[in-house]
Amino acid sequence: MTTPRQRILLGLIGAGIGRSLTPPMHEQEGDANGLRCLYQIIDLDVLGKTADDVPALLDAAEAMGFSGLNITYPAKQKIIPLLDDVSDEARAIDAVNTVVFRDGKRIGHNTDWSGFAEAFRRSLPGVALGRVVQLGAGGAGAATAHAALAMGVEELSVFDVDQARAADLAAALCARFGAGRASAGTDLAAAMARADGLIHATPTGMAKHPGLPLPAELLRPSMWVSEIVYFPLQTALLQAADAIGCRTMNGGGMAVFQAVHAFELFTGVAPDSARMLAHFAALQAARIEEEKA
Amino acid sequence: MTTPRQRILLGLIGAGIGRSLTPPMHEQEGDANGLRCLYQIIDLDVLGKTADDVPALLDAAEAMGFSGLNITYPAKQKIIPLLDDVSDEARAIDAVNTVVFRDGKRIGHNTDWSGFAEAFRRSLPGVALGRVVQLGAGGAGAATAHAALAMGVEELSVFDVDQARAADLAAALCARFGAGRASAGTDLAAAMARADGLIHATPTGMAKHPGLPLPAELLRPSMWVSEIVYFPLQTALLQAADAIGCRTMNGGGMAVFQAVHAFELFTGVAPDSARMLAHFAALQAARIEEEKA
Repeated sequence: MTTPRQRILLGLIGAGIGRSLTPPMHEQEGDANGLRCLYQIIDLDVLGKTADDVPALLDAAEAMGFSGLNITYPAKQKIIPLLDDVSDEARAIDAVNTVVFRDGKRIGHNTDWSGFAEAFRRSLPGVALGRVVQLGAGGAGAATAHAALAMGVEELSVFDVDQARAADLAAALCARFGAGRASAGTDLAAAMARADGLIHATPTGMAKHPGLPLPAELLRPSMWVSEIVYFPLQTALLQAADAIGCRTMNGGGMAVFQAVHAFELFTGVAPDSARMLAHFAALQAARIEEEKA
Repeated sequence: MTTPRQRILLGLIGAGIGRSLTPPMHEQEGDANGLRCLYQIIDLDVLGKTADDVPALLDAAEAMGFSGLNITYPAKQKIIPLLDDVSDEARAIDAVNTVVFRDGKRIGHNTDWSGFAEAFRRSLPGVALGRVVQLGAGGAGAATAHAALAMGVEELSVFDVDQARAADLAAALCARFGAGRASAGTDLAAAMARADGLIHATPTGMAKHPGLPLPAELLRPSMWVSEIVYFPLQTALLQAADAIGCRTMNGGGMAVFQAVHAFELFTGVAPDSARMLAHFAALQAARIEEEKA
């Protein structure tokens, strides 16, 4: 080949991200679209840096000709004042996970919420959206809660170990979607007893934080259960929910569709989401084999 | 493929480098070696920056996880104080064209001289090395002169429009290789009349600087003529030399072998130099078609 492929240089800024599957997802989809795509891990822990260094890292990526960046913990909010423009949704959620460099400008987006919403529509079509419990009011929870209300959830009860954080998120959601649409929950058992579904948005259940985020007996067979943890895909929560016959959705869909949406923002090319889902499944399977070895 | 290929992120820092063939040479050789290689153009002119910004750009490349950089005009000397270590040859030539980032260190090399030497040995084996004239005492000339004396040229006469620059280079060469091995020439016709060969190391003959760097009548059929200009490959000087039967060497070999040597420094993988020569020829041919279109 003598015609160089279009170069797409991407990166992920965050802490403890060495094993993220986002880089190979973008790279493989770039390959499939005839792009020369390289997605770099920019791990604050490895570099000995903190969120305070994010402005310099953003400058560096821009100077080095990156097409865009994904941003994760602990920089999703810190990045906002450094951008020239931010999408309405990202501003509402107060978190940016995707920065596009274009024509000398830095534009922030949030594809966590849109990725979650798309995965939800595909995994749990037609489920009841009246009353929903969400566990977790952190960065991921802000995105899933926004998605839930945008998809039509009538009342969202938000629980968090930090009650003030849950109250702040609920207030922000009500300001955006209307009074009464969200509240900070106080009695989890009571809320679960009348909920149509559960959105789990805390780290509990990850390989490093095993366990259940709530007592399994609060689950009922008529509920749907949506999980954001994706390593492992089958968390203790999903096992418990599957065991009693709940409709469930694992965290893989959100992980893939945030990347699907970011890929299109980065490259201007609509990716093949079925292919990206298949790539993700293959990467997950390879990761599991690695862990066993 | 579920096992991500090893990422090799490279770049070229310089001014007016948008049409360099070095990026695709590295990328294609990276592809052939199963690496995920992306080589970024970091053009000071495009970025609105100057050589004074090189320290920040070097920091940026390091933070973004580049494996290495090539450095060209106007930064080959400016870069030296920013490095942790520099090869003996690069220090002697006082120019670095290749920086490797490894284990938190920045190591400088010069593959211009070694690339020129290797191309020379392949293109002009067995030629007489007694007395040689070199035109040009700039950055490229410092590398070719070092190569010439390292290969055994007995007396090198250096000419430059800036006579002080020629004198400085000759003095540095004598300090390195021994008294009398190099001198700043004063009478080009006389030097050419007794020279075994000519090394041309000025920009004259490039598409943007057409013409001959010296009167064609100074060439003699028994001389060899070595050219560093590589776009076009067949310069006016080489046409004149070929026309009278000189043995000649075009600038392509140096362009390729500086990249061959840099590739190995960047990746630790010995590239296939025959394949890189073929890639270069294909890239050149494509470039010529483009220019015609």
